Amino acid sequence: MPQAKPSIILGIDPGTIIMGYGLIKVEHNKVSLLEMGVLQPGKVKDTYKKLQLIFDNVSGLITKYKPDTFAIEAPFFGKNVQSMLKLGRAQGVAIAAAMRHGIEVTEYSPKKVKQSVTGNGNAGKEQVMKMLQQLLSFKDDPKHFDATDALAVAVCHHFQQKTPKAVAGKKLKDWEAFIAQNPGRVKKI
Amino acid sequence: MPQAKPSIILGIDPGTIIMGYGLIKVEHNKVSLLEMGVLQPGKVKDTYKKLQLIFDNVSGLITKYKPDTFAIEAPFFGKNVQSMLKLGRAQGVAIAAAMRHGIEVTEYSPKKVKQSVTGNGNAGKEQVMKMLQQLLSFKDDPKHFDATDALAVAVCHHFQQKTPKAVAGKKLKDWEAFIAQNPGRVKKI
Repeated sequence: MPQAKPSIILGIDPGTIIMGYGLIKVEHNKVSLLEMGVLQPGKVKDTYKKLQLIFDNVSGLITKYKPDTFAIEAPFFGKNVQSMLKLGRAQGVAIAAAMRHGIEVTEYSPKKVKQSVTGNGNAGKEQVMKMLQQLLSFKDDPKHFDATDALAVAVCHHFQQKTPKAVAGKKLKDWEAFIAQNPGRVKKI
Repeated sequence: MPQAKPSIILGIDPGTIIMGYGLIKVEHNKVSLLEMGVLQPGKVKDTYKKLQLIFDNVSGLITKYKPDTFAIEAPFFGKNVQSMLKLGRAQGVAIAAAMRHGIEVTEYSPKKVKQSVTGNGNAGKEQVMKMLQQLLSFKDDPKHFDATDALAVAVCHHFQQKTPKAVAGKKLKDWEAFIAQNPGRVKKI
């Protein structure tokens, strides 16, 4: 289903120590890598300077690439209440950077991202990276998996948009519905 | 200790259902109420529209009053991991609204706010409100304690700045140090 105009997706793998980002461009259904990398709020001691670093850098990426969509990985489990509050704040400032520019914000669970990119919801980070290297034709192994994880969120969002005509415009509720409609996209492990 | 120029403090009592805000002006050491009220993200169903409501409204208050400081109440306890993530996100977008305008962000625990305003860290919400009515000369009982709680955060920040000359410019580590230096400010209950 060719798209009318190129769209740019910013994927974020939020963390309070390392926050990954990945940007892709989708043009005539061809996906290409624009940039990926990590922010390192963990290297900053002050709580608010950490958040400022995230806000400023995410804002900077948005100003530079003008993405149409901001897709974020959203974990809802593990950790203790204090680290969840910190993680929520880190996510909040990143989300606000998108809202400030009127960009659509959408979120995916880690499982959904892995399923969408590799066909396996329990895929390892290396497996996700290898699949992205193939999809986006890059060879270098990034120093941090957070960067490829963020890129995977962006690619996941792209795949979610690439739904068959019958369901175009509707959000697919779960992976089961997706594989039912896209049997060819599933890679058996 | 008279202040050189008037300063404006925005206090926030963050919540995902109701978020209180209160603005005070400090001029020649006299404190006056500018505005207080609540945002009601709980009335919005969509997660991102909730965050957008907070970001837009806090940004609006900042544009209107141009506060020098943004003071937020920061709880680190109770609740489950999922509600802490949501609360963190709500705080994050509010904090980002301040960062966007280069405003200093500072936080106080609920106990510290109550201690600072009433002299009792375990004071009830009504007690906090009564003290604020006296301090800021308003009579109406606000509909939501979230509004007076937010106002209390702003007043707490003001009191924290009003330290004796000997420690001016240094942040007081705890309430014990504060009462040791300000015996007259303690109201015995």
